[in-house]
Amino acid sequence: MNQGIFITFEGADGTGKTTQLASIARLLRQKGHDVVCTREPGGTKAAEKIRSLVLDAELAMGHRTEALLYLAGRADHVSELIAPALESGKIVLCDRFSDSTIVYQGCGRGIPLPALRMLDDFATCSLKPGLTILLDGDPAELAVRRQGRGVSDKFEMEGLEFQAKIRGAFLKLAASEPERIAVIDALQAETDVTEEIMTKIEALLCK
Amino acid sequence: MNQGIFITFEGADGTGKTTQLASIARLLRQKGHDVVCTREPGGTKAAEKIRSLVLDAELAMGHRTEALLYLAGRADHVSELIAPALESGKIVLCDRFSDSTIVYQGCGRGIPLPALRMLDDFATCSLKPGLTILLDGDPAELAVRRQGRGVSDKFEMEGLEFQAKIRGAFLKLAASEPERIAVIDALQAETDVTEEIMTKIEALLCK
Repeated sequence: MNQGIFITFEGADGTGKTTQLASIARLLRQKGHDVVCTREPGGTKAAEKIRSLVLDAELAMGHRTEALLYLAGRADHVSELIAPALESGKIVLCDRFSDSTIVYQGCGRGIPLPALRMLDDFATCSLKPGLTILLDGDPAELAVRRQGRGVSDKFEMEGLEFQAKIRGAFLKLAASEPERIAVIDALQAETDVTEEIMTKIEALLCK
Repeated sequence: MNQGIFITFEGADGTGKTTQLASIARLLRQKGHDVVCTREPGGTKAAEKIRSLVLDAELAMGHRTEALLYLAGRADHVSELIAPALESGKIVLCDRFSDSTIVYQGCGRGIPLPALRMLDDFATCSLKPGLTILLDGDPAELAVRRQGRGVSDKFEMEGLEFQAKIRGAFLKLAASEPERIAVIDALQAETDVTEEIMTKIEALLCK
């Protein structure tokens, strides 16, 4: 049905998703592809408003409310931006998508996975990525490397146990769908990561 | 499980739900009951913020996004307000609840009912009202009566066809669950409507 190609970037915080997505977009555009870069939560006017709500640390809400808000944003993102872009033949690169819901709301918040999958299917009208790049690395090593570069962010040492749990959940997901999810070592040099991702994307483009 | 009683008020716009809910609350309090009055969309801090988003006419969004936002608000409303109130033995009166989702998002927006029921079960953790008061009346007659009283609201003549469709969907729902949903003629005198509702509630309290 879709003529375009839908590629998502997943992984724990600090694995370099956003940086890699930008590099890949630049390379694909150099090769003449029409590329749309987007992110979750967010991506459309309504979804960005929902993003502000769901990420508002001052606003207490239950886990199910949080999950439904993420999915409401995704529903808008898919129907208003991703699906139309794919229908017009573009390559859509998306920073986080359904796998983040499974990992963070499922393994992180304890919401049963069958319920999450069903809700996600409703929100996305069952749209699945053609390829998912999972950037993977030991959280402690990633933190050390980023500190060495002088990067300051939320990826603090006290969050390592949680990041390790999230990493495990992503790897489990990748093992269950090896055809779709490519696990890439995020601890390589940045350019090596980009090259490895491009190899996966070129294999998909040649199909 | 719940020691309290959960009663919802449903019906098309202009049937007098809000007025009747207030009268019933007053009467129940006079009889010594501990009553919580609430409404959907809304009812908690997060749900009221979600309400502002979903009712924002300037903010375009898809039907699935809209449905998921209503359900996100309901999930918070149930977990933070309704369930705790029921657990402490209160009577909760709620202006609109799951039946409005089935009628407005299902019959109104065309979202398949099995999907909506499944999403609603997720949002409410399968909480169902012990009694639902469906205020019913011919939309044209209700409009005329309200105009006679000088009441000015959104219930305009041009919306009659839509209101008739909504009325039909509510009646169909009531026919499928006659044990839970009591259909009350909203065209009676206001005090007669109140009396009829109180009879239904007293029957439930005696059970």
